[in-house]
Amino acid sequence: MKKTNTVTTCFVFTVLIFAGLMIFSTWAIAEEATPVKLPPPQTDGGKPLMQVLNDRASSREFSAEKLSMQVVSDLLWAAWGINRPETGKRTAPSARNRQEIDVYVASEDALYRYDAEAHQLIPVMNEDIRADTGKQEFVKTAPVNLIYVADFSKVSGESTEDKYFYAGADTGFISENVYLYCTSAGLATVVRGYVDKPALEKKMGLGPEKKVTLCQSVGYPKE
Amino acid sequence: MKKTNTVTTCFVFTVLIFAGLMIFSTWAIAEEATPVKLPPPQTDGGKPLMQVLNDRASSREFSAEKLSMQVVSDLLWAAWGINRPETGKRTAPSARNRQEIDVYVASEDALYRYDAEAHQLIPVMNEDIRADTGKQEFVKTAPVNLIYVADFSKVSGESTEDKYFYAGADTGFISENVYLYCTSAGLATVVRGYVDKPALEKKMGLGPEKKVTLCQSVGYPKE
Repeated sequence: MKKTNTVTTCFVFTVLIFAGLMIFSTWAIAEEATPVKLPPPQTDGGKPLMQVLNDRASSREFSAEKLSMQVVSDLLWAAWGINRPETGKRTAPSARNRQEIDVYVASEDALYRYDAEAHQLIPVMNEDIRADTGKQEFVKTAPVNLIYVADFSKVSGESTEDKYFYAGADTGFISENVYLYCTSAGLATVVRGYVDKPALEKKMGLGPEKKVTLCQSVGYPKE
Repeated sequence: MKKTNTVTTCFVFTVLIFAGLMIFSTWAIAEEATPVKLPPPQTDGGKPLMQVLNDRASSREFSAEKLSMQVVSDLLWAAWGINRPETGKRTAPSARNRQEIDVYVASEDALYRYDAEAHQLIPVMNEDIRADTGKQEFVKTAPVNLIYVADFSKVSGESTEDKYFYAGADTGFISENVYLYCTSAGLATVVRGYVDKPALEKKMGLGPEKKVTLCQSVGYPKE
C-alpha cells in the first residue's frame, strides 16, 4: 500500500513538473515571439489604375517562389494599411469606421497577424497552417494565404444578417485592394470561401466572437 | 334606379378607359426607354496604383457639377465592367462567379441599370430618386448615387447568413473599385449603408428576391 502511494506521489509530481515545463515553454515562445517589423511600404508607383483593372483576374496556380519582406510589406499596406496616420484611417473603408477586420498571414514559417498601426507582423503560431486555410490543393503550397477575420464584438447592436453582411462588405473592400496590388506587382491571387471556417477558427485559437470571413492565396504565377 | 345604373356604368367605363390609358402610357414609356449607349471606357491610364491607395478616402461633400458621359462610362466599367469579353468576366470577382450584383445609377434625370455586357444604361424610371438612396442630406444633390442590388435568386441553397455575407463581399469588391477610380479621376465618393433599404426597394419596383446592399455617392469635390 505504501509502495502504491509512493508511486502515485511520484506520478503526480512528474505530471506537475511536465505541466510546469509546458507552461514555461508556452511563456517562453510567447516571449520569443517578438513582432517582425516590416520595411516601409511603397506608397507611390505601381501600374496605372485602369490598366490594373483591365488585367485583374483570379489565378489558382502559384510557383514555389517566396515573397520578399518588401512585397509582404507592400501587399499588407495596400490591403489594409494606414494611409492617414493622423486619424488611423486606412486604404479600405469599413462600416462606421469600425475596422473590425484583422488580416492574418499564413506562410511556411508561421502564422502572423498584421498590426497596421506599427506596420509589423505579430507571430501567432510557429506552425505552417496553410493547408487549413482552404479545401483546394493549391492552398498548401501557395507561399502566402491571407486569412480575413471579423471581430463581431466590435459590431454590437446589429442583427445577425447585418453582422454577416458588413463582415462581407468590409472584407470585400480589403480583398479587392489585394487583387489590384497583386495585378500591379505581377503576383497571382484568388479569394476563396471554400474553407472549413469553424475548423480554421479552432486551429487559430480564435475566440467565439471572431469569425473567419474569406481567405486569399498570393504568390508568383506558375511559369 | 335606372339613372343610378347609367351613372354606375359610365363610371366603370371611365375607370376602364383610364386604366387602359395608363397601361398604354406605361407601355409607351417602356418602348421609349431605349438604352443609353456609353462611350467606350478608358481601359488604360489613370494614376499609379500605390499613389491611389495612399490617397483613398471617403468624402461627403460634392459640387453640383455633373459627370460627363465619358466619366460615367469609365466609372461603371471600373466598378463592374467586363474586362475579359471572351468569358464575360469582370473587373471585380464574385463568389462562385455568380455575378449576382447589379449596379443602378440614380441621377437628376432618371434611374438606370448598368448593362455591363453591352456597356450601356437601361432606363428604369424617369424620376430623380436620389433622395431615396440615403438618409443624409448630401445624397439629394450628389450628381450620381450608385445603388448596389443583390439578386438572391442567383444564390440558391445557401444559408441566410451566407447569402447576406456574400452579397456584402461581392458589393465590397465593386465598391472598392469605385473608390479607387474616383481617387484616380479626382472625384469624391462615399459608400453608405444608412439607407431605408425596404423603402428604396419598393420605390425601385424590385422583386422580393432583390435586395439593396449599399449605396455610393459620386461627384466632384466641393471647392
